[in-house]
Amino acid sequence: MSFNTFGHLFRVTTFGESHGVAIGCVVDGCPPNLRFTLDEVQAALDRRRPGQSRFTTQRREPDQVKVLSGTLEHPEGGLVTTGTPIALLIENVDQRSKDYADIAGAYRPGHADFTYDIKYGIRDHRGGGRSSARETATRVAAGAVAAKVLPGVTVRGAVVRIGEIEIDRSRWDWDEVPNNPFFCPDPQTVPLWEAYLDGIRKAGSSVGAVVEVVAENVPPGLGAPLYAKLDADLASALMGINAAKGVEIGEGFNAARLTGEENADEMRLGNEGKPHFLANHAGGILGGISTGAPIVARFAVKPTSSILTPRLTVDRAGQETEIFTKGRHDPCVGIRAVPVGEAMVWCVLADHLLRHRGQVGASPHWPFAASSTA
Amino acid sequence: MSFNTFGHLFRVTTFGESHGVAIGCVVDGCPPNLRFTLDEVQAALDRRRPGQSRFTTQRREPDQVKVLSGTLEHPEGGLVTTGTPIALLIENVDQRSKDYADIAGAYRPGHADFTYDIKYGIRDHRGGGRSSARETATRVAAGAVAAKVLPGVTVRGAVVRIGEIEIDRSRWDWDEVPNNPFFCPDPQTVPLWEAYLDGIRKAGSSVGAVVEVVAENVPPGLGAPLYAKLDADLASALMGINAAKGVEIGEGFNAARLTGEENADEMRLGNEGKPHFLANHAGGILGGISTGAPIVARFAVKPTSSILTPRLTVDRAGQETEIFTKGRHDPCVGIRAVPVGEAMVWCVLADHLLRHRGQVGASPHWPFAASSTA
Amino acid sequence: MSFNTFGHLFRVTTFGESHGVAIGCVVDGCPPNLRFTLDEVQAALDRRRPGQSRFTTQRREPDQVKVLSGTLEHPEGGLVTTGTPIALLIENVDQRSKDYADIAGAYRPGHADFTYDIKYGIRDHRGGGRSSARETATRVAAGAVAAKVLPGVTVRGAVVRIGEIEIDRSRWDWDEVPNNPFFCPDPQTVPLWEAYLDGIRKAGSSVGAVVEVVAENVPPGLGAPLYAKLDADLASALMGINAAKGVEIGEGFNAARLTGEENADEMRLGNEGKPHFLANHAGGILGGISTGAPIVARFAVKPTSSILTPRLTVDRAGQETEIFTKGRHDPCVGIRAVPVGEAMVWCVLADHLLRHRGQVGASPHWPFAASSTA
Amino acid sequence: MSFNTFGHLFRVTTFGESHGVAIGCVVDGCPPNLRFTLDEVQAALDRRRPGQSRFTTQRREPDQVKVLSGTLEHPEGGLVTTGTPIALLIENVDQRSKDYADIAGAYRPGHADFTYDIKYGIRDHRGGGRSSARETATRVAAGAVAAKVLPGVTVRGAVVRIGEIEIDRSRWDWDEVPNNPFFCPDPQTVPLWEAYLDGIRKAGSSVGAVVEVVAENVPPGLGAPLYAKLDADLASALMGINAAKGVEIGEGFNAARLTGEENADEMRLGNEGKPHFLANHAGGILGGISTGAPIVARFAVKPTSSILTPRLTVDRAGQETEIFTKGRHDPCVGIRAVPVGEAMVWCVLADHLLRHRGQVGASPHWPFAASSTA
Repeated sequence: MSFNTFGHLFRVTTFGESHGVAIGCVVDGCPPNLRFTLDEVQAALDRRRPGQSRFTTQRREPDQVKVLSGTLEHPEGGLVTTGTPIALLIENVDQRSKDYADIAGAYRPGHADFTYDIKYGIRDHRGGGRSSARETATRVAAGAVAAKVLPGVTVRGAVVRIGEIEIDRSRWDWDEVPNNPFFCPDPQTVPLWEAYLDGIRKAGSSVGAVVEVVAENVPPGLGAPLYAKLDADLASALMGINAAKGVEIGEGFNAARLTGEENADEMRLGNEGKPHFLANHAGGILGGISTGAPIVARFAVKPTSSILTPRLTVDRAGQETEIFTKGRHDPCVGIRAVPVGEAMVWCVLADHLLRHRGQVGASPHWPFAASSTA
Repeated sequence: MSFNTFGHLFRVTTFGESHGVAIGCVVDGCPPNLRFTLDEVQAALDRRRPGQSRFTTQRREPDQVKVLSGTLEHPEGGLVTTGTPIALLIENVDQRSKDYADIAGAYRPGHADFTYDIKYGIRDHRGGGRSSARETATRVAAGAVAAKVLPGVTVRGAVVRIGEIEIDRSRWDWDEVPNNPFFCPDPQTVPLWEAYLDGIRKAGSSVGAVVEVVAENVPPGLGAPLYAKLDADLASALMGINAAKGVEIGEGFNAARLTGEENADEMRLGNEGKPHFLANHAGGILGGISTGAPIVARFAVKPTSSILTPRLTVDRAGQETEIFTKGRHDPCVGIRAVPVGEAMVWCVLADHLLRHRGQVGASPHWPFAASSTA
Repeated sequence: MSFNTFGHLFRVTTFGESHGVAIGCVVDGCPPNLRFTLDEVQAALDRRRPGQSRFTTQRREPDQVKVLSGTLEHPEGGLVTTGTPIALLIENVDQRSKDYADIAGAYRPGHADFTYDIKYGIRDHRGGGRSSARETATRVAAGAVAAKVLPGVTVRGAVVRIGEIEIDRSRWDWDEVPNNPFFCPDPQTVPLWEAYLDGIRKAGSSVGAVVEVVAENVPPGLGAPLYAKLDADLASALMGINAAKGVEIGEGFNAARLTGEENADEMRLGNEGKPHFLANHAGGILGGISTGAPIVARFAVKPTSSILTPRLTVDRAGQETEIFTKGRHDPCVGIRAVPVGEAMVWCVLADHLLRHRGQVGASPHWPFAASSTA
Repeated sequence: MSFNTFGHLFRVTTFGESHGVAIGCVVDGCPPNLRFTLDEVQAALDRRRPGQSRFTTQRREPDQVKVLSGTLEHPEGGLVTTGTPIALLIENVDQRSKDYADIAGAYRPGHADFTYDIKYGIRDHRGGGRSSARETATRVAAGAVAAKVLPGVTVRGAVVRIGEIEIDRSRWDWDEVPNNPFFCPDPQTVPLWEAYLDGIRKAGSSVGAVVEVVAENVPPGLGAPLYAKLDADLASALMGINAAKGVEIGEGFNAARLTGEENADEMRLGNEGKPHFLANHAGGILGGISTGAPIVARFAVKPTSSILTPRLTVDRAGQETEIFTKGRHDPCVGIRAVPVGEAMVWCVLADHLLRHRGQVGASPHWPFAASSTA
């Protein structure tokens, strides 16, 4: 991930402060002739508030995304990409003054207030509850476009742990995920999380979460050994999500507990010229390259700072002080990170598909004839 | 991380197969007028075999690193950088034939054999026990140069878990790390790991490990919000290490278990115009920017595949078969990853120091006068 | 220049079709705490129609630039950069339908119609006279921000040749440039160009031009030998301007006619710790690095295709046909390229200043003490 | 062109001082399964001394190129690329001491001596006649690999002007180019250049030259509008050649003298689904994208400084002084730039082919059916 841009062929450049005039991104390098609709993009944004069936009237996201460039209207409806940069913009309907009079601002522990100041000597201190929502919107919009580059691939995310309560993987059902407010794939865990988060909210506290994203039907061969590893790019994309503190692929940190026999995924013949893996401890990536098995990535999101209890801190002028924030707060920001995680995985996969196609052209097919030299 | 090159100002481009003619890297963007010696670089390479006091005769790494460019000899001894690209080369003293007659090669489960083939349709199948050793050498060499960009900063790594056996953090002593074969900071865990690994080795098995790297005295302000986050770059650098399957910063995945009160690091006045953090759950990075507190990163290394038991697999020609490798094997490759992790952290920090200095020039100093506008 | 983004630390990403919803750019990596006003940016845009004294009422550019992010309002007025990405947007006040029904469109010779189609299989065929005006606007806006990174530096452009009529350099007067419609520095050439272009316009023809851009007070040391040469970056920036077909630095192509004695710039002691160059055939750059002497770059702009005479061409369906465009046309598009050339030079210099500062930190000062080793 | 690396998918990173231990480059992103031989690469290097028929005994370049990685031996002979980074190394057979005792070194006018010092405060002052030869070697080697990415494409260079003597284009014959010491395509100009350069050499002077490189059978559609223009990348690649001061495409600076009717290239139906261009003023590129017509690029090389006459200069310690160099010198360095120009064009085209293939996949075919939407 580099600068404000990530990706090398399918590139996404984001801009804007969530509370500023507008927020947006530029997607360039998108292949031409891909069709999508604004409704699809808007639906991806709306998914950031789960729990509503897509067949009922959807409460629309107050921030609407606009497409400024890079597409034409398709005669059959919707948009089609031209191959030129696609700019997506989300305007902020309630602007605030840009004045930065809050000179003696205290730094909120666990937030980037201090680090912005120590880096630049100036910071835009305006924040707010809706910020995090809008901030994720552009990435989710870019992910909706990236998804069009990989027809046949599915990318789905779910929360697998909130605080100390982990789901039961044996009951994993993707169809449950849209039916509860937690992107939870295990129906029996939902009431546990509801009760737990009610308590957290009443106490004015917050808690962390772990999100798992699974990509299926990914073509094998994406990513490059030595350089440009797919897992390295997934790691930076997911660690770049606000409040993320850890990333793992497949067994992840648990792989450190396993022996070689337990961890290696044996292979047998499968369908369609691909091996069939008897297990997937690798999480779909070996040597930095996709194997064709599902790519499984997880990231941990820290809790936001508690805000109803005064916290010890310092301020811009070097004084020790306390700080607490009034008002409504999000007891578990990890939940809204699910669509962002999916979007980042879409963007990284789209980029790697184009890079693989660029370097290699037509993919080789396994098995190779016994006498083939390549 | 991009392609074969990582970093944006302090850039490292690696090349070479460990079993080929030579392996090396090019470091460009290194500031001029930094002094280092080949002995320092060689010592970093030799550290990959811990357990020998640096005051005794060190057994030198059989592969010697050469500096091909980018330096001059300093009148007082050693080398000094000129600001032009520094090429480091390690020649392979025992070359092998490049013939790739092994057409029907079976794919070793858990290795990149299959993925190389499915990506390129051709692969260099020659591998070997010494490969992983040499592969790490160029990165460790680059890290030795990177360290010169950050005088005053220390970067140290240690193994914190092997298999199910974790160290006792309350007994952490950095001085112990060079005194045992495991980079272990807890003297009481050493015999436990020795016994455990003896059993693993006899069983012809292998096991994973977790490595922790700590960087101290890192200037605050490195990394950029929104884009170019320091933790995102650390994540891709560490996930890019062979056999790495997970990366975390500070509390990492454990942050998901904590509440806001438990996780936020409160601040008081400290020395030298920096706040003093009362805790460091953040691992030294907030909002993608260094805080000045120690940067704490951990990565998990998976076990190599067991090799004395035949494993089910397929081969290049599409046949189901079995594979097992004869000979000596490494029961825990995670151990030798410690210097590589340190080197990657050095390289990422060097890059971010130059990027910060480039964008901002002279760093702002906290505290800021009460009436200061910037 | 790479993708839709140019620069490495001071990076500009542009988006938008001139006839689409909006056009804009994102400037990221801009140092914090730089002040500028929207009026300054708008004035740069308005300069694209020269001939009006800045002390009279300026006819404002119909397309207004907005700043969407990356700044705060300064208490003393105007904006100040925060170091975060600055998005600049120019909305198109008269949108057109996105329908692309013109399937059998003929390709205009000398335009990119055919090449867009052959690359992407789809193209946005809507164009128009105002397109080129708006297209340049975002780059000029980015250049206005870049100028703030280099206080003390001046960058000025002028037209030096239209068709076969070249200025007389001995009469070069920068103060004349804003006083005529041609950015001409030689008052005696102005009536010659006026007469010539009147004839060209009446004939329904068009003609090419050469633009020269001079940057003064550029710090020496910008650019890097071997890699990242300042002149290579200037070349790609200027060749990337629409209709540009040639770029030269200093003597340029004329250097091929000179002998070594004629071309080398001898040096004597100057002021302020810089040498004084007795000539400037080098155009301010040696070995890819700025010398401190004025940087002189020239680029040639081709004429737009004649449009009142039918031209032989083919169309999308593979038929031979003719094409001619009705309406008003620009007899010399090279003239409006002057502010674009200036803006590109500002952006490249800003990028190189940050890169130099990043790699080197505080610049060395010449002369160096006789016994100094660095 | 960026840093020490140019290209985005087919990437070349160079390193080494010509007088140092070794010089080399790393080519990464090369497609797999391309065959080449060391003899082909060596032959490209040897071409830097033209005038010898390839059927006679070739005097081999004293510096031999080695391939360190990224290939395997093909059963039928030669090497085949594996898709992994290819490192090419040329060792310097006569090393020199790295001591930099020449503290009071005078700066040679027209050379990069002063600019290196003012940028870094330290420079490697060792140079020499053979330097320029070896410096070009790595780029020529990289170009030989790049050529394999574009089978069917030809890239050929020639000198078109030395000093004031230009060739007669009506007598252009590519078969003449290898038959004379000047890469001259016009047999009648050869004796004129011989006589002229004899005089130049005797006078201890030097003169500049213009080199033209033509690429034929380039697929249309390479390069991208708005971003990643092919001509912009060619411009930076060619301007990056040592001593280059100008670059032009097609008509180049002469386009500024033409009217629209004279400059536009009309089209008729051609063979193989491509239009036939009735002229090629555009030099094969429109809107930054290749048209399929021959790509014609020219670059101007300045003369090296005269060296037998003392030149006024200053030195490192700030003293005014004189400098002159003894010994043999090259009267026209532009001549040896021809293979370098070809190599740079190969590299840029290879990179753009991969980028185009990556973004678009299978290229669209013209003509498009009348009712086709894409």
